[in-house]
Amino acid sequence: MRGYVPGEQPQDKRYIKLNSNENPYPPSPRVLEALHRAVGEDLRLYPDPVANRLRDTAATVYGFRRENIVVGNGSDDLLTMLIRTFVDAGDRVAFPTPTYSLYDTLVALQAGKVIEVPYPADFSLPSLLTEVDAKLTFLCHPNAPSGVLHPLSAVEALAYAVRGVLVIDEAYVDFAEENALALVHQYPHVVVLRTFSKSFSLAGLRIGLAFGHPDLINELMKVKDSYNVDRLSMVAAVAALEDYDWMRHNVNKIRSTRSRLMEGMRELGYFVYDSQTNFVLARKVGMDQQAVYVGLKDCGFLVRYFSTPELSDCLRITVGTDEQIDQLLTALQELRRAA
Amino acid sequence: MRGYVPGEQPQDKRYIKLNSNENPYPPSPRVLEALHRAVGEDLRLYPDPVANRLRDTAATVYGFRRENIVVGNGSDDLLTMLIRTFVDAGDRVAFPTPTYSLYDTLVALQAGKVIEVPYPADFSLPSLLTEVDAKLTFLCHPNAPSGVLHPLSAVEALAYAVRGVLVIDEAYVDFAEENALALVHQYPHVVVLRTFSKSFSLAGLRIGLAFGHPDLINELMKVKDSYNVDRLSMVAAVAALEDYDWMRHNVNKIRSTRSRLMEGMRELGYFVYDSQTNFVLARKVGMDQQAVYVGLKDCGFLVRYFSTPELSDCLRITVGTDEQIDQLLTALQELRRAA
Repeated sequence: MRGYVPGEQPQDKRYIKLNSNENPYPPSPRVLEALHRAVGEDLRLYPDPVANRLRDTAATVYGFRRENIVVGNGSDDLLTMLIRTFVDAGDRVAFPTPTYSLYDTLVALQAGKVIEVPYPADFSLPSLLTEVDAKLTFLCHPNAPSGVLHPLSAVEALAYAVRGVLVIDEAYVDFAEENALALVHQYPHVVVLRTFSKSFSLAGLRIGLAFGHPDLINELMKVKDSYNVDRLSMVAAVAALEDYDWMRHNVNKIRSTRSRLMEGMRELGYFVYDSQTNFVLARKVGMDQQAVYVGLKDCGFLVRYFSTPELSDCLRITVGTDEQIDQLLTALQELRRAA
Repeated sequence: MRGYVPGEQPQDKRYIKLNSNENPYPPSPRVLEALHRAVGEDLRLYPDPVANRLRDTAATVYGFRRENIVVGNGSDDLLTMLIRTFVDAGDRVAFPTPTYSLYDTLVALQAGKVIEVPYPADFSLPSLLTEVDAKLTFLCHPNAPSGVLHPLSAVEALAYAVRGVLVIDEAYVDFAEENALALVHQYPHVVVLRTFSKSFSLAGLRIGLAFGHPDLINELMKVKDSYNVDRLSMVAAVAALEDYDWMRHNVNKIRSTRSRLMEGMRELGYFVYDSQTNFVLARKVGMDQQAVYVGLKDCGFLVRYFSTPELSDCLRITVGTDEQIDQLLTALQELRRAA
């Protein structure tokens, strides 16, 4: 079996990193202050296994109760918990593709049966998804790597129609115009995932939240590692939620830069999907983009290139700062001139 | 299914906590300094998925190569990775019991078949363990909750005899007189686990190491969450290894206090196993210890009581500071007088 291949994470900082959908802005100063305060003798003690302080803070911010929430070591940990809870060997797990490629890897690890339902060219929600009778259905919302958001009505129709558990992975939803979190109140088989990695600028600390019906959350709690989230990550997440405005402010800047990037890519002749995330998928139909990816890397820019047939004519570019995006667009213009 | 039940982790600090085998001494000042330096803008970036800096540091300290090591979000994460890698539904997983109760929970989660081989009363290694033909064998070394260390010759005989993978979980070995790490050099089917939670005083940050043959480690790397260990935990672990003397100094103090605790418990009429860990298992043969556990809790001391038949006449007490242990022994004397 081949493991999941994450984006390149060079440790030497020479690149302008636009390949892993990290936030170009730092975490809130209040997060950093809280971390400094928490660095001390207490690190010798185990963390709270049920993360009550973080769950209570999140419950207040998002309008839930503690019992509706379980905390993960990043969303990836929550995805693993979901699959281990609901998927036995041979059980069907469905998701529209292309999407976050970890779903496939994790289902294979648990010997589940992957049912890939291909997206149409416009990345609208395929109706076939409700007909495959999966134990678990994943919907990345908005989707990666397309960046496209399905209308809430379509997501709710899916929630209404599927019989198994529906996981709505909202890793990028803070950058979108609407979200599906309220569906958790109505549908006991719907789980919504959130992460602190993107909008809250905390990819380095691995914190994710799952929202769901208390009975479902309780099942996930049994499967999770007892101490899956460490003391400092919990402190950071609480402080990040307490400075929600910092996140919103950065998200607004990123949304503005996203328009600039989308426009710039269109001027360069790319088809650009309407992004509701902090990245942009740009396609030159039928023209493999590996050379452009390599050219950009030579100029000091890391973007994401996928070698799979359905995406090899695309580049996925994280929305950085205005300055970084202007530099990238200039580099792309120069590469085009040189070609 | 019932999930694993960790030791009580009261969040209000009113207790003298001698129930979770935490270190009574703080982490190295160099760890805290390194953490303060690492609290900054870079937390917006994902951690190194393969933790090379930490693996290289550990390789140097323990005499291995980077390829011999994989890093986990605590040993628990490594145990999960091992079971997911080597155990399919119905596969046999053996371990002597009583031992760390998480093994049982994790095997059940993966639908493996648990083969419990009971320890004899003196907690010596049961020879039957080599005859059950398990895909995976766990040996907690020294064992929890007994605290007993098997002679290295017995561990090596086990490594020689078993055909599946042998996992030697050395969470507590820094408190012991010898360890089995060198077996990794000789036996490609042996994995040794270490943790930063006990001897390095970093239970709050969740870091474990697995040492093994590069081929085996490579398989574990495929199963692990891409970003399973966060930036700050890695920084702390590197700094902790770089101040190895701090750990040794604390371990020596704890070993000295351990003698005091063992002696005190014997004077109180307990049978005390020869502990090679940072906790002591004390037994009053046939006399249930729940009332003593409750009495101690009322006096402000948390110790561990197990309700299972084979351990209900025992208390497991973490070795705290000299002062804490003296206070505990005094409380036990008073409880005896009051009874």
